Amino acid sequence: MDTFDLHILGCGSAKPMLRHYPAAQILNIHGKLYLIDCGEGTQRQLHKAHLSFSRIKAIFITHLHGDHCFGLMGLLSTMSLEKRTDPIHVFGPKDVVTYFEPQLKFYAGAIQFPVMLHAVPTTESACIFEDRSFRVTTIPLKHRVECCGYRFDETTPLPHIRRDMIDFYQIPHYAINDIKEGADWHTADGEVIAHERLTYPASAPRAYAYCSDTAFCPQNAPLLQNLTLLYHEATYANSEEEHAHQVGHSTAAEAAQMAVLTKPKQLLIGHFSSRYKDDTLLLEEARQVFSETILADEGLCLSLE
Amino acid sequence: MDTFDLHILGCGSAKPMLRHYPAAQILNIHGKLYLIDCGEGTQRQLHKAHLSFSRIKAIFITHLHGDHCFGLMGLLSTMSLEKRTDPIHVFGPKDVVTYFEPQLKFYAGAIQFPVMLHAVPTTESACIFEDRSFRVTTIPLKHRVECCGYRFDETTPLPHIRRDMIDFYQIPHYAINDIKEGADWHTADGEVIAHERLTYPASAPRAYAYCSDTAFCPQNAPLLQNLTLLYHEATYANSEEEHAHQVGHSTAAEAAQMAVLTKPKQLLIGHFSSRYKDDTLLLEEARQVFSETILADEGLCLSLE
Repeated sequence: MDTFDLHILGCGSAKPMLRHYPAAQILNIHGKLYLIDCGEGTQRQLHKAHLSFSRIKAIFITHLHGDHCFGLMGLLSTMSLEKRTDPIHVFGPKDVVTYFEPQLKFYAGAIQFPVMLHAVPTTESACIFEDRSFRVTTIPLKHRVECCGYRFDETTPLPHIRRDMIDFYQIPHYAINDIKEGADWHTADGEVIAHERLTYPASAPRAYAYCSDTAFCPQNAPLLQNLTLLYHEATYANSEEEHAHQVGHSTAAEAAQMAVLTKPKQLLIGHFSSRYKDDTLLLEEARQVFSETILADEGLCLSLE
Repeated sequence: MDTFDLHILGCGSAKPMLRHYPAAQILNIHGKLYLIDCGEGTQRQLHKAHLSFSRIKAIFITHLHGDHCFGLMGLLSTMSLEKRTDPIHVFGPKDVVTYFEPQLKFYAGAIQFPVMLHAVPTTESACIFEDRSFRVTTIPLKHRVECCGYRFDETTPLPHIRRDMIDFYQIPHYAINDIKEGADWHTADGEVIAHERLTYPASAPRAYAYCSDTAFCPQNAPLLQNLTLLYHEATYANSEEEHAHQVGHSTAAEAAQMAVLTKPKQLLIGHFSSRYKDDTLLLEEARQVFSETILADEGLCLSLE
């Protein structure tokens, strides 16, 4: 199966702590890397995870709070030091353009490859990126500043080639891509072998959604159906529910409630407040609502299946 | 003796590596903290060193290369999260104002205490800060962008009180500060006790200078006399001398040559290139020129004596 891996680089929140780094994740989709949020220290975490900067094709920023974007200028500078020439696309709320465009102008001498900033809609869901492998849509989130999450849907995968049938009919290598795409095979003596006989059905497409930072938004449930994995922020424990609502964050139980409404295979919670010395309290509270919950942690790598 | 400590938070250079953090140091002068440079991850390193953000009174930035300043916005944001109300002064070449002023405006809602940006002269040495404990002067450096180092001179300390004499003459507590400042003591029966009899001579004032990033600048030697400790960048080994000169950096031997010209008690080298897996090569090369050389490292704390 093609790669669809999630690497957690940081799952802390605004107040820094030694236990966690601020928000950053890498999604490896079919071998290409996509960065989601870029808190301070992201480049250090990429090094630790042995993830090559040059493989990053695009960056998706949810909002302009520093713990989600203060690592961007450093990362781009390092990419340039490493002689990157490929453009990079940076998506985010319009303030991503307002805030970073002047900085990129200031550092034009140091960041010598094209950085394309794209303002994305944050009040409605919209497809903002699509290629052969996947597409990305925005998820409107409710926070203290303009903010959106992102949903990554794998494009319907191609069927798997049956090696035994290919060998049996001695089908040459050059014909295989056409067969995967739906072509039949014509033998030398005129027999037509239907492509269904030469392939196994495709795997189900996989999907990942990242919802951080946000208050509980049940109205987003229709946008979050059929997910393999849902990441939802769970900054606070239930005992801090009132404070969570005041500051536009969710409790662990609310994150789990979103999973109840949307039924992903798994729920991954993160963006933990520094007040908790042990995040298992948050895990326990979430699991009481949605049992298939796991805890984000720096260095965690999940393969979506 | 009053505190005069240097804490190394980061001594790496532009290309990030796991072995070192980018440039940042804390100078603790008589209990107040001063930050010199603020590379990405400085706030994390402050946490590790158990140095309280709220005790930082001023920040001195040498130049605008990212490895010397990309931690500033995150640090200021965290100070505000921690409810700082005291102003902070940030000194640096004029680009510090050009680059950070718009960012501070953008984050005015998140950074709610006064941040005073000060452009300092970088082509000549000038006193830019002075209080009861110390004064700071700029050191013009030669790098690819406008850049200056900083020299911190302890104000001539007051003499030490002789506890035995104070007890003998039963001098009350309220009079001691005056005696330290030079007053004599008049006993009840009219005898005058000269303040020299009541005190031991003051310690010699201590001085620290930070020179990074810079090519070898022997013309700065007159500005760097009578130092207790000289920090000088030593980005490269002797074998990379030509490259060092092309990019406005120094070799370890050149750093040591500056120490030969200026005779500090000790030389501390740092700003190591990521190409060296072990910095002792740089230490050895420097010690061949100036034996009293030591190697910077994250977590190192030196008390100047």
